[in-house]
Amino acid sequence: MEQQNSELSARLALAEAVARSGGAVALDYFNRRETLVIETKHDLQDVVSIADREVEQLIAARIRDTFPDDGFLGEEYGLQPGSSAYTWVVDPIDGTSPFLNGMPNWCVSVAVLHEGVPVIGVIFAPFYQECYVAALGQGATMNGRTLQVDATRTLQNHVTGFGANSYVSPEKVGEILASLLAAGGNFIRIGSGALMLAWVAAGRVVGYYEPYMHAWDCLAGYCLVKEAGGWYHPFNTEGERITKGAQVLAVAPGAEADLRRIAGL
Amino acid sequence: MEQQNSELSARLALAEAVARSGGAVALDYFNRRETLVIETKHDLQDVVSIADREVEQLIAARIRDTFPDDGFLGEEYGLQPGSSAYTWVVDPIDGTSPFLNGMPNWCVSVAVLHEGVPVIGVIFAPFYQECYVAALGQGATMNGRTLQVDATRTLQNHVTGFGANSYVSPEKVGEILASLLAAGGNFIRIGSGALMLAWVAAGRVVGYYEPYMHAWDCLAGYCLVKEAGGWYHPFNTEGERITKGAQVLAVAPGAEADLRRIAGL
Repeated sequence: MEQQNSELSARLALAEAVARSGGAVALDYFNRRETLVIETKHDLQDVVSIADREVEQLIAARIRDTFPDDGFLGEEYGLQPGSSAYTWVVDPIDGTSPFLNGMPNWCVSVAVLHEGVPVIGVIFAPFYQECYVAALGQGATMNGRTLQVDATRTLQNHVTGFGANSYVSPEKVGEILASLLAAGGNFIRIGSGALMLAWVAAGRVVGYYEPYMHAWDCLAGYCLVKEAGGWYHPFNTEGERITKGAQVLAVAPGAEADLRRIAGL
Repeated sequence: MEQQNSELSARLALAEAVARSGGAVALDYFNRRETLVIETKHDLQDVVSIADREVEQLIAARIRDTFPDDGFLGEEYGLQPGSSAYTWVVDPIDGTSPFLNGMPNWCVSVAVLHEGVPVIGVIFAPFYQECYVAALGQGATMNGRTLQVDATRTLQNHVTGFGANSYVSPEKVGEILASLLAAGGNFIRIGSGALMLAWVAAGRVVGYYEPYMHAWDCLAGYCLVKEAGGWYHPFNTEGERITKGAQVLAVAPGAEADLRRIAGL
């Protein structure tokens, strides 16, 4: 137990360090983004640039140097299985479209799994200089201030975060949002799912739902929401399954029943 | 003509001054928002606090002192017709829900109409310390930097801003967003329509559509978008009609045809 605690502490310190240093590099690119060449991936709306790749490589190299036996999964370069019980899951820039278009809502997301369970979540939003940090059983903070979701907030008296991409049909997105509104809710979509999950932990939104999301987008946020007193729908992290998309829902207790019904979870 | 220019210049300076000073007061409330009593208006999602009212009163008083013959329309206290050709249209805090929930996306919006036409638009986003300023025929700026929309950006290769409230049915919102996605677009909704209109002028989004919006939410943004090279769907400002909601659309040229088709405008 004591050994596990010290393993966790060492990784927590590194997770925050790489999120902050990766974020500083990303912010430098953001401030000269007109020089970046924009490439597309799955569709025209799914963009990427050298900034995403360079930040992921920087983060991966530091982790490999310190914990060579840990596994690593990044959005841009995929899965490198490890031999320890730990796997790092990193999105170098979540919200690449806002990033490339000059909007402030993007972040670096770093999760650490222990035997498949997210035990560390760090989300750093460089434009805001806000760093969200959580470790299993140790609570969640933002810039050092403790985060705790408010049990009195509901789908009806608060705003819900939502996200989607072209893996989900336009009709399905329309149906989900119509259901949310018909239930008396309202939605926000800022373009970064990881940052909206951090905002659930911070109480800025009551929950976050996205019908198809990847591990690197959600696992750090999941740890944050859990440690702030919320609930999340488990993500399958077994073997190669960790690279596949799935439904993602994280929510404060007062909106859990409504959002699970709307999501069918 | 010369007299009209000097009338415009004097009002432009005051518009920026009141947006900035009103924004400073709002930001002070934002930083201690847990002390504010939240009240609801049209529905549970339509919130307001003393911050909105105090900022509007401060702005209205300064305008009355300097231009006592000008008309004034504010979100919180309604229309005071004037005897000059000028009417001020002010939203003290656009995005009250983000404001009260601790999100950064809210702003002060100040428009001046000359014979019903928006000739000045100032939008100040205090959290970002970004001040968007436009005057008819004089271009648009953000913190002094000239804004110009990019004619190569389309619905398909950029993001579109969207907003709605409970004046629009959930089904209608679902249909609009499904159409936008089916056309290859994607949407962002940050919770402040006025700020998203400023973001159209800044090129951060390609357009903004909201099926039902008030004059105080859109007229400053309309002036900004026009002066940055975009198009807007006219808002009826005649007599009492100025207090009623209407469809709002502002867009860069490359997405105009697609967004007008989706909006039916």
